[in-house]
Amino acid sequence: MEQNEKYSITELGPKESISRVMLKDTLSLTGAEISANRMSAGKSSLFAHAHKRNEEIYLFTEGKGLFWLDGEILHVKEGSVVRVSPTTIRCIKADDNTALSYFCIQVDEGSLVQYTRDDGIRSDIKPDW
Amino acid sequence: MEQNEKYSITELGPKESISRVMLKDTLSLTGAEISANRMSAGKSSLFAHAHKRNEEIYLFTEGKGLFWLDGEILHVKEGSVVRVSPTTIRCIKADDNTALSYFCIQVDEGSLVQYTRDDGIRSDIKPDW
Repeated sequence: MEQNEKYSITELGPKESISRVMLKDTLSLTGAEISANRMSAGKSSLFAHAHKRNEEIYLFTEGKGLFWLDGEILHVKEGSVVRVSPTTIRCIKADDNTALSYFCIQVDEGSLVQYTRDDGIRSDIKPDW
Repeated sequence: MEQNEKYSITELGPKESISRVMLKDTLSLTGAEISANRMSAGKSSLFAHAHKRNEEIYLFTEGKGLFWLDGEILHVKEGSVVRVSPTTIRCIKADDNTALSYFCIQVDEGSLVQYTRDDGIRSDIKPDW
């Protein structure tokens, strides 16, 4: 893991090797907590939970499973992306025959001020690859 | 795409079908802009860029490539996660023989107030799967 003021990097390795990894402290993130998760086939979250102030975004990258949201059940799979409001109670279960890989991103609800064109600064520098 | 006060969901489909998809407006995200990207083999970002106030986190999920950060070049691949400070100039290039898939998460630097144990609320409700 390299870390300096400009950037930090870590290597999670292949999805199959991950159980649960929290990234905020490792990467010195200041605007999000991010976890990388792989839930074994047939397993589910140990308990359902909600949040006080954080919005969560779930990026499902492999496998399939069920996402329980205040009693409603969504089917999720590779490519599903789900935003969950802070007070919604949530729980995840992997398919009985397929492990489920996903990232969970926690951010402070309402915290984004500006983005992309309003926040980005195009550079005239061209990397010499 | 379903959307309500409790959650919103969208389906990106398999990684191979993605070019660049922005998710903030689609999912009514309030704390992050998230893009899903797939860069074809040998291609690079159209230009290098920095940010005014947003921290970016890059989650590389498939392939390999190069990540240029203020003149320093990192090798990235599936499982690499990189935090980039707002003012760092950045540019990405996919490997000459392999497409590069990644998510980019934009958040307001310093905006996370509390997280995980301090923000989560364990529920006594047990889903009846």
